[in-house]
Amino acid sequence: MSGSSIGQIFKISTFGESHGKGIGVVIEGCPSGLEIDESFINSELARRRPGQSKITTQRKEVDKGTIYAGVFEGTSTGAPIMIFIENQDQRSKDYNHLKTTFRPSHSDFVYQEKYGIRDYKGGGRSSARETAARVAAGAIAKIILNQYKIVIRAFVSSVGLCSLSAEDKIDVTLIEQNIMRCPNRTKAKEMIEYLEKIKQQGNTTGGIIHCEILNTPIGLGAPVFDRLNADLAKAMMSINAAKGFQIGSGFEGTKMLGSAHNDLFYVENEKVKTKTNFSGGIQGGISNGMPIYFDVAFKPVSTIMQTQESINQKKESIDLIAKGRHDPCVVPRAVPIVEAMAALTIVDHLLRQRTTKNRPVL
Amino acid sequence: MSGSSIGQIFKISTFGESHGKGIGVVIEGCPSGLEIDESFINSELARRRPGQSKITTQRKEVDKGTIYAGVFEGTSTGAPIMIFIENQDQRSKDYNHLKTTFRPSHSDFVYQEKYGIRDYKGGGRSSARETAARVAAGAIAKIILNQYKIVIRAFVSSVGLCSLSAEDKIDVTLIEQNIMRCPNRTKAKEMIEYLEKIKQQGNTTGGIIHCEILNTPIGLGAPVFDRLNADLAKAMMSINAAKGFQIGSGFEGTKMLGSAHNDLFYVENEKVKTKTNFSGGIQGGISNGMPIYFDVAFKPVSTIMQTQESINQKKESIDLIAKGRHDPCVVPRAVPIVEAMAALTIVDHLLRQRTTKNRPVL
Amino acid sequence: MSGSSIGQIFKISTFGESHGKGIGVVIEGCPSGLEIDESFINSELARRRPGQSKITTQRKEVDKGTIYAGVFEGTSTGAPIMIFIENQDQRSKDYNHLKTTFRPSHSDFVYQEKYGIRDYKGGGRSSARETAARVAAGAIAKIILNQYKIVIRAFVSSVGLCSLSAEDKIDVTLIEQNIMRCPNRTKAKEMIEYLEKIKQQGNTTGGIIHCEILNTPIGLGAPVFDRLNADLAKAMMSINAAKGFQIGSGFEGTKMLGSAHNDLFYVENEKVKTKTNFSGGIQGGISNGMPIYFDVAFKPVSTIMQTQESINQKKESIDLIAKGRHDPCVVPRAVPIVEAMAALTIVDHLLRQRTTKNRPVL
Amino acid sequence: MSGSSIGQIFKISTFGESHGKGIGVVIEGCPSGLEIDESFINSELARRRPGQSKITTQRKEVDKGTIYAGVFEGTSTGAPIMIFIENQDQRSKDYNHLKTTFRPSHSDFVYQEKYGIRDYKGGGRSSARETAARVAAGAIAKIILNQYKIVIRAFVSSVGLCSLSAEDKIDVTLIEQNIMRCPNRTKAKEMIEYLEKIKQQGNTTGGIIHCEILNTPIGLGAPVFDRLNADLAKAMMSINAAKGFQIGSGFEGTKMLGSAHNDLFYVENEKVKTKTNFSGGIQGGISNGMPIYFDVAFKPVSTIMQTQESINQKKESIDLIAKGRHDPCVVPRAVPIVEAMAALTIVDHLLRQRTTKNRPVL
Repeated sequence: MSGSSIGQIFKISTFGESHGKGIGVVIEGCPSGLEIDESFINSELARRRPGQSKITTQRKEVDKGTIYAGVFEGTSTGAPIMIFIENQDQRSKDYNHLKTTFRPSHSDFVYQEKYGIRDYKGGGRSSARETAARVAAGAIAKIILNQYKIVIRAFVSSVGLCSLSAEDKIDVTLIEQNIMRCPNRTKAKEMIEYLEKIKQQGNTTGGIIHCEILNTPIGLGAPVFDRLNADLAKAMMSINAAKGFQIGSGFEGTKMLGSAHNDLFYVENEKVKTKTNFSGGIQGGISNGMPIYFDVAFKPVSTIMQTQESINQKKESIDLIAKGRHDPCVVPRAVPIVEAMAALTIVDHLLRQRTTKNRPVL
Repeated sequence: MSGSSIGQIFKISTFGESHGKGIGVVIEGCPSGLEIDESFINSELARRRPGQSKITTQRKEVDKGTIYAGVFEGTSTGAPIMIFIENQDQRSKDYNHLKTTFRPSHSDFVYQEKYGIRDYKGGGRSSARETAARVAAGAIAKIILNQYKIVIRAFVSSVGLCSLSAEDKIDVTLIEQNIMRCPNRTKAKEMIEYLEKIKQQGNTTGGIIHCEILNTPIGLGAPVFDRLNADLAKAMMSINAAKGFQIGSGFEGTKMLGSAHNDLFYVENEKVKTKTNFSGGIQGGISNGMPIYFDVAFKPVSTIMQTQESINQKKESIDLIAKGRHDPCVVPRAVPIVEAMAALTIVDHLLRQRTTKNRPVL
Repeated sequence: MSGSSIGQIFKISTFGESHGKGIGVVIEGCPSGLEIDESFINSELARRRPGQSKITTQRKEVDKGTIYAGVFEGTSTGAPIMIFIENQDQRSKDYNHLKTTFRPSHSDFVYQEKYGIRDYKGGGRSSARETAARVAAGAIAKIILNQYKIVIRAFVSSVGLCSLSAEDKIDVTLIEQNIMRCPNRTKAKEMIEYLEKIKQQGNTTGGIIHCEILNTPIGLGAPVFDRLNADLAKAMMSINAAKGFQIGSGFEGTKMLGSAHNDLFYVENEKVKTKTNFSGGIQGGISNGMPIYFDVAFKPVSTIMQTQESINQKKESIDLIAKGRHDPCVVPRAVPIVEAMAALTIVDHLLRQRTTKNRPVL
Repeated sequence: MSGSSIGQIFKISTFGESHGKGIGVVIEGCPSGLEIDESFINSELARRRPGQSKITTQRKEVDKGTIYAGVFEGTSTGAPIMIFIENQDQRSKDYNHLKTTFRPSHSDFVYQEKYGIRDYKGGGRSSARETAARVAAGAIAKIILNQYKIVIRAFVSSVGLCSLSAEDKIDVTLIEQNIMRCPNRTKAKEMIEYLEKIKQQGNTTGGIIHCEILNTPIGLGAPVFDRLNADLAKAMMSINAAKGFQIGSGFEGTKMLGSAHNDLFYVENEKVKTKTNFSGGIQGGISNGMPIYFDVAFKPVSTIMQTQESINQKKESIDLIAKGRHDPCVVPRAVPIVEAMAALTIVDHLLRQRTTKNRPVL
């Protein structure tokens, strides 16, 4: 009930703080018989870890995930899987000045009010470091999706004022080849330069991540509340700094006419498809077999290297001078987090789907 | 697990089909001792019901909610509350032509694939009629919120190409005074004319609803997955035809700099406030006492009064000729649904909040 | 959270009060494609209903269940199924003397303390009438179990001081042929005479129900907390008046030696069996394919036709004179309730089982 | 969904295997502001650990619990608490002969069937070692209960054929003063001698644990399914080797007359009490303020030091020769486990209770 769990069948619970012993995740409901390779978990964690490039924070976190439970001789047993990521580069002294200070647009104030106590070191539980646990769990989910040939890929489509436009060619093979994780070489370069400039000013900005899920079987998602789009929305909006979610035609689609927006069905090689895909692969909350795609908006990073007005716990005005090493924009490192949350959501619905039809045998 | 429940403490389960006996809702976890007036439920239902104006469907549904359980002599007992809304104006014959037909951008196809059967009459379970049950439950939630002076109000901010702009004055007292539920008289008139024109063409469009939640106490929402914004996102994206959700600065905020986007704290009359509110009243997933506000995007209504290509269950191409009485745009009638889902989400988190701090007495 | 739901995938929520409009149940997660016959629901309800014989209460409740949702042309659609049982023979005036009185060993006192209000008419929500909703849901569960050839049968093994002994022959075909639901003719007669005598004295007694589940597949139940025996225990102990549960060798088995108690494996026709079955068909919380069997103890009915000391809401001593029509012992009518709760538990675990193994296709 | 979680608000998830890296527990929903002392967790773990006396297994497990998350400078923060207990004395080679063997009345066979794989080392996930994680979580629960002055104490009332009788004096201060955890010195001695004799024969037996919960506030538990007695039943029956549960008058009470069994109310010092307590402190599923008491039956330990017939994974008959170090009876070490499960159940209902009444302020 503390809000640290998600999923109904493939259920994850994360724990840990930014400057405690480490962070981890317990995965309940992972099917047995799955070959699980710790090195794949770690390659996913490497995509999220700090210090990976000049446009991310320079904090070095090794982020090595270790499986503590649920895997026997390389295979999942059906028991809860626990993955732990030890904290290492913890310069806790960097945070002592924040002990009684509320940073603007951070969660310091609301945690203090809600709980009457807070772990002020590096944000404690509210730190984005918690998302490493999600990426580790997402790696397990991706191993399952791989069996279904379901592919999840996210990329950066916008950073501050610099966006991919309709004319920009998309080449998904480029995503992991540039530090921006943008699928267009020219635009990637532009975004990187833009972000470096902002960083030099001690400032930050926001951005948008686009995500696609390919080869999803028809039928995932439930009517009414547990629509696949609603569960994806919750999963994405649960990521630190997320401020918006849209699927298919999204906000722009509100301007269209029904006659243009309706996705007309046709049949190709016995498969039902739609001529357009404004639905974004989900209709009535249920996947229709077309590609699922959505966007997630991330606000500018709250920690800026500029002096800001704020207040302290005694409600006195103070000047806040930032310290530490921070990202100028979350989106390059948020790409694997978006993918992980998508993978977790899809796997949970895949497993739920096994229970929906009457079948006389197990 | 069929996806028809939402909430953890204040939990609702809806049931029923568009052309069955009726639709209803069971509310578990409503506190005892609450004075519940059936007439308030019905006034909320009247705001959602079809046939209320020239810009909504002309289907007449009386939508009278009756309390079947959980209320004793006008007061909640702590037992599950069941509210039932009988179906009345069911022209089931209108739907016989849809028995084996998949309407574009409807859920006919995915239901058939997922379940191997579907109630084709008026969409069955997938009909937006299900949302009446949510509005009924939302009325109970609003009675609780009223005790906390928490106010929820939504309005239409955009219909197709016609939107409220930054210059348009907002007068919330106007919302229920025009059939568009737009808080600006001139713009409301414009939107209505725009929609009538689209309707005459047998076409439809989408729109955006803006919602505000005022006087929320500090501390609602949980870190990590059950962030208040994430739960609001799921609640909103679970409404039929919703395609996007943004909170606070949303998608536009991604373009800002951190130095401009950060909401600086100050103290006024002992209360902590922020100078700006780009956070939309929620930081780190937890309400900070500032107004919560968000937008929900709705796609164009899928049922258009024009002939469309489609396919039938045998995967043959067909021409689909629409029948029945439908809305040209969902947003005017979706306003009370957005409010209901917001109320349900806030009440659930209010009750959860009672469990988060250590207190030596019950 | 009000405690009126049970099950994880096949989940039921009951609602309604003894003297309100009626009682009902919403079943979420029932697979689609199931042929559902309302008459089977009603034959199950008839086994539980009051007034069925001279050893049960003489209140006449027709208890006709009507399907309100989730079944389309006789087949489940995967949508929530709602079954409603209207209240009819409600002599509410019989209960006016209980408005401010706490009956001994009833829930009047604790409901008043917990909720600050109670529906005093016929026990309101605490009435055993609520179990009719469970029997209705259990009928749907039995339809599913029937496909797997899983058989659930319960019978009365003890009433007050009159018990089946090891020497008594058991003939399960006799269960529904006598009003005691005892599988031995002589003992049934004895129990009936015993109960009539107690009834004439205005007194009541308790009893034990034995239940068997045959043909359960191997693998149902989960390790650790959701053991099949633990979930059966909860299901049984949730029945009004239940005070004890034992499975397999139960309390008597504590006296045995391990060398005698261990169930030795052997193979017969390729099937693994055990020579004895002190485990009661469940090992490590998981069904092993042998018959599951357990006992449920029910206390004496609290409403006796004798004057009793008690207190009222002002905490004053009073003399309580019972009115109304009540059972001298719950066990004959509790047999179908035990079966229903067993069926619901097994079906829920059957559906969960579909999600536990890694399988590359849906 | 893998069954390793229990609780709704105070929710625990255990993980880990007998011979893996260790076992642990994540506690979600622990209120903030609680002073938590690791040494109390460890004193509870010491009561459960193997090797504590001549009548328990001689395996030495240090069982030191370490808090990994959720506690900041000695105080709970409201974040998930993770406690980990490293495995140390793992003689994995002791188990190699069990790789393809199914031990009688163990879970080897059902795990293999259910999951298609099993960690055969020391029982893996099915090992009673998992209960150490419950005891650690139970220690946190006891810290909360201590604030309410709620006392939970369990003791051994029966071992094999040697039981406390009605005449035996109970002195609860003796419980922790003898290795049997029996509150009567003479009987304790008798039980110990009895058990030593059985142990010398390489045999095992069962036993019964009695548990009392004192000073419980009125109102804990929910009507219908989540009755306090039903949740206690599930909690107890989820303990390895538990075969029976009874509360209050239990199985014996079925033989009584209602006139004798009814607990008559009276008032003493403004407090409502009952003259007898056959209800066991719970009526209608809700605590009535009287002492709660119940019994849990444990079967004989399955691992005996005698050669037994069994089968292997190829379904061939084999002779099984036991190795390793095992308990002759589980009950002395199960006392703290019963207490832990009781504490977890009560705390969960204490927190739920905060949400049941309408109250205008948080």
